[in-house]
Amino acid sequence: MNSFGQRFRFTTFGESHGKAIGCIVDGVPAGLDIDEEFIQSELDRRKPGGEYATKRKEDDKVEILSGVFEGKSTGTPIAMIIFNKNQKSKDYSNIKDLFRPGHADFTYFYKYGIRDYRGGGRSSARETASRVAAGAIAKLLLRELSIEVMSGVSAIDGISAESFDYEYAKKSEIYCLDKNIDDICKQRVIDARESHDSVGGVVSVKIKNSPIGLGEPIYYKMDSVLADAMMSINGTKAVEIGGGVQSSNLRGSQNNDEISKDGFLSNNSGGILGGITNGDDIELKVYFKPTPSIFKPLKTIDIDGNEKILELKGRHDPCIAIRGSIVAEAMASVVMADMLLLNLGRDIKTVKLAYSK
Amino acid sequence: MNSFGQRFRFTTFGESHGKAIGCIVDGVPAGLDIDEEFIQSELDRRKPGGEYATKRKEDDKVEILSGVFEGKSTGTPIAMIIFNKNQKSKDYSNIKDLFRPGHADFTYFYKYGIRDYRGGGRSSARETASRVAAGAIAKLLLRELSIEVMSGVSAIDGISAESFDYEYAKKSEIYCLDKNIDDICKQRVIDARESHDSVGGVVSVKIKNSPIGLGEPIYYKMDSVLADAMMSINGTKAVEIGGGVQSSNLRGSQNNDEISKDGFLSNNSGGILGGITNGDDIELKVYFKPTPSIFKPLKTIDIDGNEKILELKGRHDPCIAIRGSIVAEAMASVVMADMLLLNLGRDIKTVKLAYSK
Amino acid sequence: MNSFGQRFRFTTFGESHGKAIGCIVDGVPAGLDIDEEFIQSELDRRKPGGEYATKRKEDDKVEILSGVFEGKSTGTPIAMIIFNKNQKSKDYSNIKDLFRPGHADFTYFYKYGIRDYRGGGRSSARETASRVAAGAIAKLLLRELSIEVMSGVSAIDGISAESFDYEYAKKSEIYCLDKNIDDICKQRVIDARESHDSVGGVVSVKIKNSPIGLGEPIYYKMDSVLADAMMSINGTKAVEIGGGVQSSNLRGSQNNDEISKDGFLSNNSGGILGGITNGDDIELKVYFKPTPSIFKPLKTIDIDGNEKILELKGRHDPCIAIRGSIVAEAMASVVMADMLLLNLGRDIKTVKLAYSK
Amino acid sequence: MNSFGQRFRFTTFGESHGKAIGCIVDGVPAGLDIDEEFIQSELDRRKPGGEYATKRKEDDKVEILSGVFEGKSTGTPIAMIIFNKNQKSKDYSNIKDLFRPGHADFTYFYKYGIRDYRGGGRSSARETASRVAAGAIAKLLLRELSIEVMSGVSAIDGISAESFDYEYAKKSEIYCLDKNIDDICKQRVIDARESHDSVGGVVSVKIKNSPIGLGEPIYYKMDSVLADAMMSINGTKAVEIGGGVQSSNLRGSQNNDEISKDGFLSNNSGGILGGITNGDDIELKVYFKPTPSIFKPLKTIDIDGNEKILELKGRHDPCIAIRGSIVAEAMASVVMADMLLLNLGRDIKTVKLAYSK
Repeated sequence: MNSFGQRFRFTTFGESHGKAIGCIVDGVPAGLDIDEEFIQSELDRRKPGGEYATKRKEDDKVEILSGVFEGKSTGTPIAMIIFNKNQKSKDYSNIKDLFRPGHADFTYFYKYGIRDYRGGGRSSARETASRVAAGAIAKLLLRELSIEVMSGVSAIDGISAESFDYEYAKKSEIYCLDKNIDDICKQRVIDARESHDSVGGVVSVKIKNSPIGLGEPIYYKMDSVLADAMMSINGTKAVEIGGGVQSSNLRGSQNNDEISKDGFLSNNSGGILGGITNGDDIELKVYFKPTPSIFKPLKTIDIDGNEKILELKGRHDPCIAIRGSIVAEAMASVVMADMLLLNLGRDIKTVKLAYSK
Repeated sequence: MNSFGQRFRFTTFGESHGKAIGCIVDGVPAGLDIDEEFIQSELDRRKPGGEYATKRKEDDKVEILSGVFEGKSTGTPIAMIIFNKNQKSKDYSNIKDLFRPGHADFTYFYKYGIRDYRGGGRSSARETASRVAAGAIAKLLLRELSIEVMSGVSAIDGISAESFDYEYAKKSEIYCLDKNIDDICKQRVIDARESHDSVGGVVSVKIKNSPIGLGEPIYYKMDSVLADAMMSINGTKAVEIGGGVQSSNLRGSQNNDEISKDGFLSNNSGGILGGITNGDDIELKVYFKPTPSIFKPLKTIDIDGNEKILELKGRHDPCIAIRGSIVAEAMASVVMADMLLLNLGRDIKTVKLAYSK
Repeated sequence: MNSFGQRFRFTTFGESHGKAIGCIVDGVPAGLDIDEEFIQSELDRRKPGGEYATKRKEDDKVEILSGVFEGKSTGTPIAMIIFNKNQKSKDYSNIKDLFRPGHADFTYFYKYGIRDYRGGGRSSARETASRVAAGAIAKLLLRELSIEVMSGVSAIDGISAESFDYEYAKKSEIYCLDKNIDDICKQRVIDARESHDSVGGVVSVKIKNSPIGLGEPIYYKMDSVLADAMMSINGTKAVEIGGGVQSSNLRGSQNNDEISKDGFLSNNSGGILGGITNGDDIELKVYFKPTPSIFKPLKTIDIDGNEKILELKGRHDPCIAIRGSIVAEAMASVVMADMLLLNLGRDIKTVKLAYSK
Repeated sequence: MNSFGQRFRFTTFGESHGKAIGCIVDGVPAGLDIDEEFIQSELDRRKPGGEYATKRKEDDKVEILSGVFEGKSTGTPIAMIIFNKNQKSKDYSNIKDLFRPGHADFTYFYKYGIRDYRGGGRSSARETASRVAAGAIAKLLLRELSIEVMSGVSAIDGISAESFDYEYAKKSEIYCLDKNIDDICKQRVIDARESHDSVGGVVSVKIKNSPIGLGEPIYYKMDSVLADAMMSINGTKAVEIGGGVQSSNLRGSQNNDEISKDGFLSNNSGGILGGITNGDDIELKVYFKPTPSIFKPLKTIDIDGNEKILELKGRHDPCIAIRGSIVAEAMASVVMADMLLLNLGRDIKTVKLAYSK
């Protein structure tokens, strides 16, 4: 249960302070140009550092170990590895027996009876670098079909974007979708950090130029797999598709997307009907909780059940939604690639075409 | 891609107006008392009829075909079937070539090149009866471990419950969680129907007495699988866990659940940390769009791309959230059963215990 | 763990003396003509009765419950059901607490702590009728690509075919591949029955006109999945591909299939190299043990561990290889259909072709 | 389709002459002592070198990258990597456009349209080192339950062992099971090499002290998964369980294993009945073809279809069965570990026990 995807499928490994993290990507069609610089550039978008992220020093240099020959995918598994530069464990003695509130310390310990307490071990968001690497491969595949996956931050600390400009977000230091709120959002992040606190945020993802017909009808629907993908990202507490939460307040006559010969007249559906893409833009939102690692004293217990006060130190993102945006984009790309491949057997005509000479 | 779950797993079949619908449930441990009356009673909670649901006449009588011997599960697949009483197709000639807005007609047609247009075919919510049957088996398993899964409607047409009383919901005709809004919600449903429209709603699910440790760490997290399960239900547009959307507006110091020796001091996490249950109540919300089938004229196109006006007639739920509540409860039960079984191999001590004599 | 196949996938249910058996077939491409008479004719080839099989009276009438609309597959699950005519249990009191040697009684009982002892319950070869139904759907798909799967009996009781005539086998009452041994094989079967014993046999399967390239490279190889499929059939004790056992006695210079511009100069590989089809005929053999149900007294124990003598009565195939031939053919057809669909994402060119307009 | 196992599951990567090979092992229960020296010693048994294997120089040093903390498994994925020492590609210009008979060159090329021709790329037996690493982890788990998996060579070039001594095999340079044939088998291997040829062989695997009840009833049977596992090993052409091929020549009265209160009176079943272990030794045989790489001229074609004569040079095992023995043992260990974990949900009593406090 450590893989994601059915036909485009990746499997990850690694802990925050182990030797390395990485992934194996299976199902990549042969003959795809594997642009290593692009993969690295995607990792660079997610990597730590800067004013609005953790100060952990990692250059997140990714290395391809297999599956690529003379610049092209061969159809065999593509393994990628990122060695942890910053793996030398600082002194964890002050927290190794404590459960940090809002973290997985408590649940890993009681599930497994053992846990790697160094930087959260496996539950660290560091694991998401592997997802971004896999997502970059997915994007290379999507590119061949002119499908574009974009993301950005649409709210921080309750300040919400009024318009979504995905091109602007690419250049914003906090991937903000609306230049009118970019500065205030940055200020909120800095305020939170300075007050030893953290802030929540919202990420929006848009997928342009999706073919009609992606998604399996009942139990591997496009929207349910997207929800799975997004909810699997550390700190996600809600996912919505299209109109989302707001749809529950509407009447059918308001919410239905009528159809003309030029396409749908609105997109409350978020590009998905009955779990299957309708050709419109796919739109979703991911709600992130504030970073649980804050520098205020917190009540907790130790592994023997004694009550303690936790006083955290260290380097942490004051707002996980910012780098979460890149991870959400990567996961959406993987879902799209997976659905593209799954859909190949949709009808007998397509199957015959694939075997005609 | 037509099954749900890994170790407790069900596979469904059937269309709205075919001969029958049903499912095969795999992975049920042997020796479980299979209480057929209980299964039927769960189906009765979901079945159509009454003032707040479709008028379709179906008694949804479920029949067990296999996997049960002398009242107990044998460890082999449990197949269940529900014959469609109301299968005789009325005249569909007026809509068979039209795409109903908000429905899967358009996407099925363009994906597959063929569709069963009778009552939505496979995409009909009728399929969810099979889920309720599978969920009932899951509940029988959960019962043995004193785990209870409950659900109710927490909002309709924007009217929200202020307090959640799951016992009250069981008796409410619309499964309303708050008796103070029950009547007004009912009125909204009736108003919508009378104005040939429909309303959205919200369902809340609570799981009590979950063991600590359920959920796999990264790609089969308790919350991501719940999100998948809920989003797979017809009409769901958003899913949230614990604090959900609201968490994205909070600061870490507000959102973190501190810990005492008696347990967590709050439950913003919704009982899940790092994808794994922490022993607190699991809480989630599911947001349903308004029923797309309304009786007002709607712009659409036919299968040849000609613009048409759709004038629907027939029997439809004016608010899918109501019966959706029972389906969400069933799906949550299946997820819990699956996670319980997956967690059996968590540590070497448990494995050895299972093979000690 | 009750399904077979990845993209063309079926899931079965039912016991020998339950209400019904059947299956759900997922992944069938839409638009395929579903010829119900053909499906029934395949079941007729496997059904009990006649001089060389069990005398159990079953007409094995198959009924399609879903997934087909106006004679064509719709892309949704195809459920098929066969009601057990002969389900009225005779008196099983003499064997219900005994473990029949060579049967699964012992292992089911100790695994599950409960078992349906009526005719072997789930472990009965009756389950294989569901496989034949699924295999018939697979054949309809293979037909579209002119792929032909054939089978026959190549040995009974140590009497082996010298030449393989698959057309002859279709007409032989015991599906014998060599008309020169047909009569003697029949006689051996009758002799075995008359002496209250049973005989083993060998089944050969040949797949003609396979495309090159089917099979995944390392862990879902064409040959390993065929081996899995064949070994899952009741009574199989060995599977070989191409030269098989005999290859282990050869030198490389004898065993290698050299290549000319017109193709391979021999077919010791059985049409598979590195787990992938090479375009030559796929050839395999399946070795069946003699039917364990014989009418001679056998030493056994009861569920309390007391030693007993089993004296079986009833209706049993004296040679399971005969009807096993049809089941092997069905399973090979399913594997081929599955591999065809899996192979659709093999390279970027094929993927793009499937999405070009 | 690049993973093996369901609950104990590994995923591999890497090519013969790429940077590294390796695997991710999922599902290892937490708290297991991970003895790195043992893992290395298993790899040493498989590694190239010596008089009876390829002369390729690889020390096959394995490194654990994740999933182990303070010497114990943590329940998270265990990644292992083996860097290829000998990766510097010699000159492949003479064969890069030729299909070596008996190899996967032809099928990979026609499936994918591209292939890594250096040493067979992904289809090289080098990949099996990853399997041995995964198998070593499986063995550490099996040890905790006193289950022992053993293997040895039971025939080479038609010379067959008369008795099986698994302890002797551990010390034999060619893992020969019968000391009386050890020397002659070695001689056959050397003769083959000296005559620029290769020999086939047979491997036997025995699993002692298996619990009763392992294996899922119909589609994930112990014997079918073992067959899948064994057939997935490069060069396997046949697999048999227990009496195997020979069973097809017997009568039921000869083949049935009668039962006494002290257990089964014979073991023609090979320890498996109805796909489920019966507590007796599990016994199987794997038939390997002779190494296809020989140093005699062979007719073949190039990628443009021109007829050519292949003149191979290089380093190759003259008998793949020898090192194949270790791989078969590793795969059998993985299957056992997987089945042990799958069987944990077998009955409600075991499930409740695992959650009792």
